[in-house]
Amino acid sequence: MTDALRYHVDGDLVPADEATVSVRDRGFRYGDAGFETMRAYGGTVFRWDAHVTRLFDTLETLGMPAEALGVSALDLRARVRDTLAANDLREAYVRLSITRGVDDGFAPPDADDTDPTVVIVVKPLSRGGREDRGGEPGWDKPATVQTVKTRRVPDRALPSDAKTHNYLNNVLAQLETRVTDADAALMLDADGTVAECATANLLFVADDAIRTPSLEGPVLPGVTRAEVLDIAREEGFPVEEGTYVPDDVRGADEAFLTSSVREIRPVETVDGVEVGGGPVTSLLSRLYAERVERECYASDDGGSAEDDRDGPTAD
Amino acid sequence: MTDALRYHVDGDLVPADEATVSVRDRGFRYGDAGFETMRAYGGTVFRWDAHVTRLFDTLETLGMPAEALGVSALDLRARVRDTLAANDLREAYVRLSITRGVDDGFAPPDADDTDPTVVIVVKPLSRGGREDRGGEPGWDKPATVQTVKTRRVPDRALPSDAKTHNYLNNVLAQLETRVTDADAALMLDADGTVAECATANLLFVADDAIRTPSLEGPVLPGVTRAEVLDIAREEGFPVEEGTYVPDDVRGADEAFLTSSVREIRPVETVDGVEVGGGPVTSLLSRLYAERVERECYASDDGGSAEDDRDGPTAD
Repeated sequence: MTDALRYHVDGDLVPADEATVSVRDRGFRYGDAGFETMRAYGGTVFRWDAHVTRLFDTLETLGMPAEALGVSALDLRARVRDTLAANDLREAYVRLSITRGVDDGFAPPDADDTDPTVVIVVKPLSRGGREDRGGEPGWDKPATVQTVKTRRVPDRALPSDAKTHNYLNNVLAQLETRVTDADAALMLDADGTVAECATANLLFVADDAIRTPSLEGPVLPGVTRAEVLDIAREEGFPVEEGTYVPDDVRGADEAFLTSSVREIRPVETVDGVEVGGGPVTSLLSRLYAERVERECYASDDGGSAEDDRDGPTAD
Repeated sequence: MTDALRYHVDGDLVPADEATVSVRDRGFRYGDAGFETMRAYGGTVFRWDAHVTRLFDTLETLGMPAEALGVSALDLRARVRDTLAANDLREAYVRLSITRGVDDGFAPPDADDTDPTVVIVVKPLSRGGREDRGGEPGWDKPATVQTVKTRRVPDRALPSDAKTHNYLNNVLAQLETRVTDADAALMLDADGTVAECATANLLFVADDAIRTPSLEGPVLPGVTRAEVLDIAREEGFPVEEGTYVPDDVRGADEAFLTSSVREIRPVETVDGVEVGGGPVTSLLSRLYAERVERECYASDDGGSAEDDRDGPTAD
């Protein structure tokens, strides 16, 4: 399957099995690269603007602002579209990386002198959006969450708002779940307060509010996290971005993980304690699917998808 | 120059400009790889055993022990020798990386099922060893050191005894030196005590002892650091591996950096304060060069190099 795909590497569309970067690329040597994982629905990347904004923030943090690199959002968007088109993909996972390019030194070159490497990898996913139109949730089964010993890297070592190829902290966290057969690793910060899961933000419902660790901690500002908080506020739910310990999550009424690919995934257990999704999780999932439907599939049936319950469903 | 070189990638010797890894390799996607930077003198890698031991420790920390990967020290050594031979290189920088291989998921495959990618990159250096035999020090000019704000990643987030492709912490530290024109970034741990420089260990002479941050802190167990401490103890110098603040270094009688490529490099200034090398730094450098001479160049003149001051010198 993968070998039939084409990826976008350094300006060219190439077969997946020929998609490579130099071993001298800093993205390989040092993980010196920013990236975004996104989801295309019906050919449209959901929340493209939020992803590209975060990517450019990452590049800024890495001392290579997009402008100095000569990288524009418009050009990146065109490359993503070309990649989806070349693969005839409308429902897809999209991973966009920008590295500091090929270079033999350790000290980074000036941003103006940097020739970045842009890589776009895609793979097919199922249709998203409203279930009554054929949409499927981004997850197969609810998450089993395990609190791990590996602590999140503090902001003073590597700012958590930067999404980079330095992902070993999260990989080590995930490795710990092998022992327990859990599938999501819950990471704490240096003080033992809840930060995030290895590849998702964590939200939970307790004391009549939707709660999630504040971005003051070492927490990635997730695009789906922000979307869900926006939906929650629009619906009038009390929302608290605060400081929590694992017991708060284990004792929650509901809990769920958010990420661009898996969307809103209910949490079945935390450290073996049953938590589960529930009415709030279900409602937020439905409203998220509706936003996806409205913004990405609306044109499929020539206009107002919201009122067209007989519109086409995906394959 | 680089393009004429050949690198060893995944079992094959390939021209440097064709030396690549898949964009699906975890070494690229997550910096999910261990590596060593070594130095070959006269065709022999100095302290190979120490490097391969540390590399295997790194792989163990990353949950992919060498044995499970089917990687042996003997095979790696053969690949390094082949790479040096293919490039007709005797005096060389050698970078050996082992990644977790090509794989599309986030959760790592079992170590037994992992097909690692082995990459060896080389480049020419000058002859090392004794100066009276043509050896040159590994550095051009003494280091100007700047204490930076970026703090070392704590061991609980990513163990510092693992040398991995997650090097952004060090890259961010190095970026801070742009402002001051210093060339070495001195990193502190979360508590503000001295850890190491971005690409070297730091040692200094104060109160009649050779001092360096203890490995209890987030400090890479440098191979050259260990070598120098061994020489110092052999010479009867008092050695203290302890906990120090930047002022201890700024007020030192002498200071120097250690790394496999640059060997023992005197520190000219720390945060603009003059420190300098001195008699201890010079003596340790001479004794280090003698060990290199004895162990790597001895066979050049058919036996006991130590007593042969008329032996051949390098080009």
